[in-house]
Amino acid sequence: MATQVHPPRGMRDFLPVDKRRRERVLRVIRDAYEAHGFEEIETPVVEDASRLHAGLGGDNEKLAFAVMRRGLTVDDLREAASPLELADLGLRFDLTVPLARFLATHRSSLPPVFRAIQVAPVWRAERPQRGRFRQFVQCDIDIAGEPGIAAELELLAATGDALERLGIDGARIRINDRRVLAAALEHAGVPEDQRDATLITVDKLDKIGREGVAEELAGRGVDGERLLATLDAIGAGEAPEGFDAATLEPLRELQAAHVGIPLELDPTLVRGMGYYTGAIFEVAHPDLPFSIGGGGRYDGMVGRFLGQEVPAVGISLGFERLVDLVELPEEGEREVVALLVDKQVPALEALAAKRALVAAGRTVRMQRRPKNPQGLLDQLAASGATHVAFLRPGGSAEGLELKPIA
Amino acid sequence: MATQVHPPRGMRDFLPVDKRRRERVLRVIRDAYEAHGFEEIETPVVEDASRLHAGLGGDNEKLAFAVMRRGLTVDDLREAASPLELADLGLRFDLTVPLARFLATHRSSLPPVFRAIQVAPVWRAERPQRGRFRQFVQCDIDIAGEPGIAAELELLAATGDALERLGIDGARIRINDRRVLAAALEHAGVPEDQRDATLITVDKLDKIGREGVAEELAGRGVDGERLLATLDAIGAGEAPEGFDAATLEPLRELQAAHVGIPLELDPTLVRGMGYYTGAIFEVAHPDLPFSIGGGGRYDGMVGRFLGQEVPAVGISLGFERLVDLVELPEEGEREVVALLVDKQVPALEALAAKRALVAAGRTVRMQRRPKNPQGLLDQLAASGATHVAFLRPGGSAEGLELKPIA
Repeated sequence: MATQVHPPRGMRDFLPVDKRRRERVLRVIRDAYEAHGFEEIETPVVEDASRLHAGLGGDNEKLAFAVMRRGLTVDDLREAASPLELADLGLRFDLTVPLARFLATHRSSLPPVFRAIQVAPVWRAERPQRGRFRQFVQCDIDIAGEPGIAAELELLAATGDALERLGIDGARIRINDRRVLAAALEHAGVPEDQRDATLITVDKLDKIGREGVAEELAGRGVDGERLLATLDAIGAGEAPEGFDAATLEPLRELQAAHVGIPLELDPTLVRGMGYYTGAIFEVAHPDLPFSIGGGGRYDGMVGRFLGQEVPAVGISLGFERLVDLVELPEEGEREVVALLVDKQVPALEALAAKRALVAAGRTVRMQRRPKNPQGLLDQLAASGATHVAFLRPGGSAEGLELKPIA
Repeated sequence: MATQVHPPRGMRDFLPVDKRRRERVLRVIRDAYEAHGFEEIETPVVEDASRLHAGLGGDNEKLAFAVMRRGLTVDDLREAASPLELADLGLRFDLTVPLARFLATHRSSLPPVFRAIQVAPVWRAERPQRGRFRQFVQCDIDIAGEPGIAAELELLAATGDALERLGIDGARIRINDRRVLAAALEHAGVPEDQRDATLITVDKLDKIGREGVAEELAGRGVDGERLLATLDAIGAGEAPEGFDAATLEPLRELQAAHVGIPLELDPTLVRGMGYYTGAIFEVAHPDLPFSIGGGGRYDGMVGRFLGQEVPAVGISLGFERLVDLVELPEEGEREVVALLVDKQVPALEALAAKRALVAAGRTVRMQRRPKNPQGLLDQLAASGATHVAFLRPGGSAEGLELKPIA
């Protein structure tokens, strides 16, 4: 018989206090996004394995939990050329692949411009470590059907409003554009077959610095100094000589917009996913060494499933990183009564008293009264009880004295 | 390129209108349960395969979706004696096994009597058919730590209140007790090794009738007439001759209780799961040929994980069956504005108008205005828009006329 019983490795249970807090924070986020015209949808937690492994999920594809086909025989195991042949479904590793599939499935039922909210868990089989979980919640908003910058503006404004409603001060959004990065690579003479690898190196700027980047690029025959100089010039508001200024226009327009949260041009911002085709974003906070969200435009992705292009842009907030930053005010009003019942009170009488309190609009947490109730009261107060009442033999709801818990 | 793109077999997407409706119904259920002192918890969607397959899930164990171990090699496939050896996790098939595991994990952090709410999806690989899904939501409440009938009473009262708040009239709860069934089997002289099979046959009474049950039992050498007569007598309020009347006491007490929803003694009620040890319930509605919920006492189950007995009793509402019965009133108050923007209006001006409306407390769904907006307006109205406003070149939020959508 096990004496230590845990949830699966890298995953968590939520006790009531944590669950309540999480749901409250999610409610604020949902309310903000809904006010901006986004509408919540839901997809199953699993998708067909072929879609999850269509090359759209980047490195995350390797982290997908695979669901085994039903009805497999030992012969199937002997004959399979690889473990993945035995899986037909997988737990989603992000909310973007399922959204693209959803848009492909329901395009004809949706308005021309569709704004989706997805607030839901995703799963990645990462090596468990502090602050990193194998099941975690993402909060995504996406706009499908709007090819122009109007979509980026709405998305960023809604994100800014959500962060403001959460009381998170000081956040800003770093912006860049994949088309600008592509033009800069071209301008700096990076060979075509080196461009993806070069971006991956540039993405390490925070970690290894300019010299580290230049060195790593030089090792592959890429002139890193020249590339960084091109990006610097763009960051300084210039179009480097020979650089097509028209490429910069959408980014400049975005940079100049007032969306309620500071936008900060960062021409070295890359973002990991391969599917981005235009603007890219990363939500930063001065107190944090990591981003609390990110996203971008991915105009080609829905077409991969639908066979018809649907422009789309999205931004995802990492809920697990946000929830610790948020200080919500205490929930007022709700009277939560810890009803401590003497052992001698019959169950039916206790229930009658409880039901009368509930009918009067109160939340009631009933416990048998221990000899010394202080420890129990402390525990109930910590889990949200605001009042205490003692039900004694012969007592009833009317006669109860509700005392605030100090 | 696929032209038909669907969610995985037997699973569903929810578009905004459906998602909103579902979340509203769930809110009513959660509010009712919270008022009765139940507190929501959350567990991961997967549990360790060894726990899911510990014999507690009955037939549902066979329907569990299995999650493959990570890092499997082809050699692992060749050497495995069965497919299940390749799985270390599984999607939960109910919320009771995860709760028992949760209670074992967190017993020391919980109050002596703990009332849990779980509102969450479960997965079963059933053959897809009309009205049956492979991912569906269950609404469970459970009370752990209270061995006496007080727990059953609270559970039934909370269930009745939830159904009442949902506007579901006419529901009643059929009740029985596994200890009474066991005594009746003994009293009717059913051999010990025939008792489980006999209960499974009695459970078919609705489908095959008394004669069918008696015939099936006779085929196994069990005196079905005698057993049914014993159960009839119990249903009529008698203790059959030679039957220990004390066994009936908890059931009689339950039957007599006023919990806000009619309780109906049905001595032939069996319920499928093997883990029940006392009272069992089934929520019935006169308009429906199937139950909308059920549960019972399972005092031995937590002990299977914890090595220490924790009395527990729970009831589960089948949300997918409930949600269609519920007629919620229209959501009032919220002004949802369909903002139709002329093509000539620059994106930044459209955003400014939208943000001003949002700041004034409205929900705004912005669309470019088509030449003939009627079809789009109908679509937006169907998805909840209450007002329409047209933004023309040079216009602003102040000048907008908000017209109710007829």
